[in-house]
Amino acid sequence: MNLRRILRSLSALILLLALVLPGNAQTPLKTIAFMTDFDVKDDAVGICKAVMQGIAPGVNILDVTHQVTPYSIAEAARFLAGTAPYLPKDAVFVAVIDPTVGSKRRAIIAKSKLGQYFVLPDNGLLTLVQDRDGIESARQILNPAWMIGAKTSSTFHGRDIFSPAAAHLAKGDDWTQAGPAIDVSTLVRLDLKSATVNAAGLLGQVIGTDGPFGNLVLNIPAETFAELGYRIGDVIPISLAGKPYAIPFVKTFSDVPVGKPLVYIDSRGRLSLGINQRNFSTTYQVDAPAEIAIPRKPQ
Amino acid sequence: MNLRRILRSLSALILLLALVLPGNAQTPLKTIAFMTDFDVKDDAVGICKAVMQGIAPGVNILDVTHQVTPYSIAEAARFLAGTAPYLPKDAVFVAVIDPTVGSKRRAIIAKSKLGQYFVLPDNGLLTLVQDRDGIESARQILNPAWMIGAKTSSTFHGRDIFSPAAAHLAKGDDWTQAGPAIDVSTLVRLDLKSATVNAAGLLGQVIGTDGPFGNLVLNIPAETFAELGYRIGDVIPISLAGKPYAIPFVKTFSDVPVGKPLVYIDSRGRLSLGINQRNFSTTYQVDAPAEIAIPRKPQ
Amino acid sequence: MNLRRILRSLSALILLLALVLPGNAQTPLKTIAFMTDFDVKDDAVGICKAVMQGIAPGVNILDVTHQVTPYSIAEAARFLAGTAPYLPKDAVFVAVIDPTVGSKRRAIIAKSKLGQYFVLPDNGLLTLVQDRDGIESARQILNPAWMIGAKTSSTFHGRDIFSPAAAHLAKGDDWTQAGPAIDVSTLVRLDLKSATVNAAGLLGQVIGTDGPFGNLVLNIPAETFAELGYRIGDVIPISLAGKPYAIPFVKTFSDVPVGKPLVYIDSRGRLSLGINQRNFSTTYQVDAPAEIAIPRKPQ
Repeated sequence: MNLRRILRSLSALILLLALVLPGNAQTPLKTIAFMTDFDVKDDAVGICKAVMQGIAPGVNILDVTHQVTPYSIAEAARFLAGTAPYLPKDAVFVAVIDPTVGSKRRAIIAKSKLGQYFVLPDNGLLTLVQDRDGIESARQILNPAWMIGAKTSSTFHGRDIFSPAAAHLAKGDDWTQAGPAIDVSTLVRLDLKSATVNAAGLLGQVIGTDGPFGNLVLNIPAETFAELGYRIGDVIPISLAGKPYAIPFVKTFSDVPVGKPLVYIDSRGRLSLGINQRNFSTTYQVDAPAEIAIPRKPQ
Repeated sequence: MNLRRILRSLSALILLLALVLPGNAQTPLKTIAFMTDFDVKDDAVGICKAVMQGIAPGVNILDVTHQVTPYSIAEAARFLAGTAPYLPKDAVFVAVIDPTVGSKRRAIIAKSKLGQYFVLPDNGLLTLVQDRDGIESARQILNPAWMIGAKTSSTFHGRDIFSPAAAHLAKGDDWTQAGPAIDVSTLVRLDLKSATVNAAGLLGQVIGTDGPFGNLVLNIPAETFAELGYRIGDVIPISLAGKPYAIPFVKTFSDVPVGKPLVYIDSRGRLSLGINQRNFSTTYQVDAPAEIAIPRKPQ
Repeated sequence: MNLRRILRSLSALILLLALVLPGNAQTPLKTIAFMTDFDVKDDAVGICKAVMQGIAPGVNILDVTHQVTPYSIAEAARFLAGTAPYLPKDAVFVAVIDPTVGSKRRAIIAKSKLGQYFVLPDNGLLTLVQDRDGIESARQILNPAWMIGAKTSSTFHGRDIFSPAAAHLAKGDDWTQAGPAIDVSTLVRLDLKSATVNAAGLLGQVIGTDGPFGNLVLNIPAETFAELGYRIGDVIPISLAGKPYAIPFVKTFSDVPVGKPLVYIDSRGRLSLGINQRNFSTTYQVDAPAEIAIPRKPQ
């Protein structure tokens, strides 16, 4: 073997690497977290995913849920804020709960101060994320190159606008190309009530139930409840949907017998009502929305 | 360092590349789009996916839906045709809505003229794709090497026949090995009624509802409705399930007040009836199947 | 080109390879099979997946089902044992059906004699896998480095303990780091009744229904039923939930007319009752749990 052959081998190697490595060295695709109120009984969610895969082949799409109560922006805002802390700092959220699709409401991309992107209709979905993480900047999606279809539909922007935009972001495309910057102060805000505390006690709301378990989701942060002065082990007098209850405040379900109710701080840091291995909502016939009142602990 | 050492380094490099590159240079796996009427309440869908992953590790499986109305070939045919345009030209569809599993109905692979593969029972699921995209050729799945299990079951061909065949296609295996070619003209056809128009007007059918939103899915293409002469803004006289309605024809939901009905062209190019932010089907107690009649617009 | 330049090119190549190859040469991530009773109506399953992706980016998560009947360990144990044979020999199962979350029940990792890992609460979920595949060894998850959160919750160990542990296993982390070994003989066992046969015949139980199809899932293995002496084609006298039936024993649904009942061996090797293209459970108003008795075939 002589020098010439070595050079030829080397050239072949370099050529081979040139062919193979670019694919591997590419910026990895960002994860897309996907949430809708489309349900999964028809092909709507599948079509959106196909659109995303078409633009960003191989992208990882993580389903948050597709069973948001239809049109419930408040519920979806809660899930969005609940999931975001567990996704990467460069994740792309696409949330399509869009009761005013086709109207003048804006389709936007917002970037949080943590670096995550949110692709959604400007209808209040972002309020809880904005309050906690802050929004650094936002853009209105107006560039047809970030949409699909010669002509977008008036009723399925999940397919035509939000999914394509999310896929472009996941690929690392320059988001300033999506459309003009918009003033963050003009973002639509959801008017979310939180529990209030006064001299007499706390007034809050039932805002949902916990999946199939029927625990009540309340708009009462643990810190707010703490102001009332109760301790683990206390029996709490509660007025719920107009009826009186007396329920022990414990750490977890198994701290009460099977079938017995409990008051506890749930895994999201909110006060909650449940029954050990049973369904509070169906047992006591209480569902969102409903009022809950708890007096201060007597001194 | 001398020439000998260079040669040794070079050899080591080439060996290393030989070990590492083949894995990366492989043909990428094709995407599998998966649809069933199995629902996701038990382990059936998970088992099928495990079978596919076992044959084609890492394959991307896109769920169209697993909640097709049990045994409804017509509904599934609609979802299949609705999703196909959004998947890659070499995608593999596996659709298991199989009311006659275990009978003499054939298990087949069909290749559309666009290049997509369809793995499914020969029971009419393919009719709408065939009408639109054309079927280039088809094979009956008879080769045991394309199935799993020493002996396939008589009741779960999703697991034993369709999933394995789809995974072999996704890997790029030669589909002529799956079984003998079959005459495309012998494929079972679904007898799908489409709306008809005569001198008096249009007669169509309600064929489904739109996920959780309750909009009515009709077998009335926009082009067929256009023959009646109505324009955006017109109020359309409709006979639906024997009752009279007068509903404005608009572009999108928000063109009518919240809670008011509308007639519109949906995102799939069909006429549809809905209510802005409410559920038409439950509000007016109309579900598939039902008749709908619309007269021509008076001159 | 001289020797010096060759050497420089070679060095550059080696550097490039050093940067690119480690990522590709990594041990591939193990597949995670994920099952819960959380349902998919809220963000709970999405949060768990985000936690797993955060620890093992790109990991393949295969959903078995998230609609196990809430708190039903027996049903989940059946799905776990039903799915395991179709997953790779090094797959990681994470099953969170956890009615006693927050109590003293142990969070464990068990390794089957086939090599699969099972991450779950020690509450009997593993019984059927243990009986069939054997458990080689087990560990209690106590190492905070295998959990997330400064302080784990008392009510969402799916997020805080089971998902992180599964992701560490999928990455190939040394599972002896998860916590101390536990004696396999101390694992909690489910008391699962199986059908019994005596001189008169067989006594079994309805233990579930088959997804949306309404076929009855029975705790009667095909081998047990075979002891009664019936053959394909026989009409079987059955007492079900106290009522008498006479139903033909056939191979598959289409062996009886549409709408007619059948007795058959299902795809999991168990006796089952169904109706061709209809729902046995809703038609005859029989659901789990219920008793079923079948006499021996008269000589």
